Amino acid sequence: MQLDSAQLNAFSAVIDEGSFERAAAVLHITRSAVSQRIKLLEERVGQVLVRRATPCTATEAGQALYRHAREIALSEADALAAIGGGPRSTTRLAIGVNADSLATWFPAAMAQAGEDPSITFDIHVEDQDHSANLLREGRVMAAVTADPQPVQGCQVLPLGTLRYRALASPAFMQRFFATGVTATTLARAPMLVFNRKDALQERFVRRITRRALTPPVHWLPEAHAFVKATQAGLGWGMAPDLMVAGHLHAGTLVELIAGKPVDVPLYWQYWRLNVQALARMTAAVQATAHSALLRR
Amino acid sequence: MQLDSAQLNAFSAVIDEGSFERAAAVLHITRSAVSQRIKLLEERVGQVLVRRATPCTATEAGQALYRHAREIALSEADALAAIGGGPRSTTRLAIGVNADSLATWFPAAMAQAGEDPSITFDIHVEDQDHSANLLREGRVMAAVTADPQPVQGCQVLPLGTLRYRALASPAFMQRFFATGVTATTLARAPMLVFNRKDALQERFVRRITRRALTPPVHWLPEAHAFVKATQAGLGWGMAPDLMVAGHLHAGTLVELIAGKPVDVPLYWQYWRLNVQALARMTAAVQATAHSALLRR
Repeated sequence: MQLDSAQLNAFSAVIDEGSFERAAAVLHITRSAVSQRIKLLEERVGQVLVRRATPCTATEAGQALYRHAREIALSEADALAAIGGGPRSTTRLAIGVNADSLATWFPAAMAQAGEDPSITFDIHVEDQDHSANLLREGRVMAAVTADPQPVQGCQVLPLGTLRYRALASPAFMQRFFATGVTATTLARAPMLVFNRKDALQERFVRRITRRALTPPVHWLPEAHAFVKATQAGLGWGMAPDLMVAGHLHAGTLVELIAGKPVDVPLYWQYWRLNVQALARMTAAVQATAHSALLRR
Repeated sequence: MQLDSAQLNAFSAVIDEGSFERAAAVLHITRSAVSQRIKLLEERVGQVLVRRATPCTATEAGQALYRHAREIALSEADALAAIGGGPRSTTRLAIGVNADSLATWFPAAMAQAGEDPSITFDIHVEDQDHSANLLREGRVMAAVTADPQPVQGCQVLPLGTLRYRALASPAFMQRFFATGVTATTLARAPMLVFNRKDALQERFVRRITRRALTPPVHWLPEAHAFVKATQAGLGWGMAPDLMVAGHLHAGTLVELIAGKPVDVPLYWQYWRLNVQALARMTAAVQATAHSALLRR
């Protein structure tokens, strides 16, 4: 089936911008023209593609089409640049990144690739164990992920290892682990967990106790707040060396068990597309990860 | 209609924990008992309540019931504590907080209230202009919000003002705003925006130019990465004084237009419930906000 490129364009603009108004402004057409094109496209494929909400998002059917629309837009931008035709257009890179990478090494890679003013970023925060789903759903074209299995149509590059440590404040250690870090004490000590997708604390507990425990849990989905709450003694939690080296050195955070880190190997998965902006970002990510992450 | 409290309990545990397995572990029952109770509850109300996914979440119908289930659990915990009966149980406070509060003053409030070991937190990150929705949906029992209109059943307390400034690196200023900060230069300079719900940059642009512009946009939903990207010269963006005072002082970030902050008054909205843990957190939030935020 042949799809209308103006309709596809309107559709991906609505998803990119989050509203019909902003899509209209970006495309320099009226809001009703955007609305009309999307309605026609939805009739053509026989599915609702846009969830009309604030912000607008793609439905499940829309996600598959969005990937197609983005690929077309990317290839077109490159083709136009190659023949020197058309106005200078920007390429928006939708990328899934885990919060701890974003809080540490990833911005440097963005800064490096972003020196090219034709690149803009659309960063999605997602747990490293789940970001491959964003690729599968077509919501991003590249991701920092813990999943080495290539998503269909994707290339995988190993980036290195993010090393996590189980940490607590000295006062918290005294209060909950004075008798040692055991199944008994771990079952009672409050545990900080980033969100429902974060399995790092559980992984550490299983490694130490060989079973799953159900201690009191604080859910706290912000990387720096997570470290601050650990320092304040709210709970113990896993944080990457890259964020806490200073605190460990100063002794304001200590390891629950010295020398028992949890290593998370990270990979860069990206659509196998011959697009300049994506190649540039891939090089920047590799270079930055190479100097920031541990190598095996 | 009289609902079974064991079923309600199983339901809210699945939503709180994100999976049937963890809910079973927390309730000390089998996974199939959890599954059975939820099925019975769903049959009773005639609606699907749990979206079976990783993690499990409440459906729209489930959200309304979740609020009811949480209220019952909270009141029960207080009643048991008052009569000194039952095992010491923890109260989980589900709270919606905007990312910039979480990255700055809010962890101190958590630390203060969290000195009571019977309190655990379930923090949801949400834009200050949208967090009132979390209250409406019953997904949180309190929220830091920009919305002073009380959500039904909620109490509102003013917290003070978070002051934002439009910031860029000196090199970025030189490159894009050498001729001044005008509609022409703002339309071309890359702009950092937290996510589709973040209207702060747009608000600043409208105030300066009296119109909406469509500059290139980087979407970057992580508070510290946002500031880092601004420093690296990827774009200009709005950041709170509390996060950037040091950078402004050192000159690594400068204001686009000196003395044109955007002030965001924040409010604490919480369920009108006579629950000790919520009262304790409310006092901690008021005290912390009082010393960290600006007063009008």
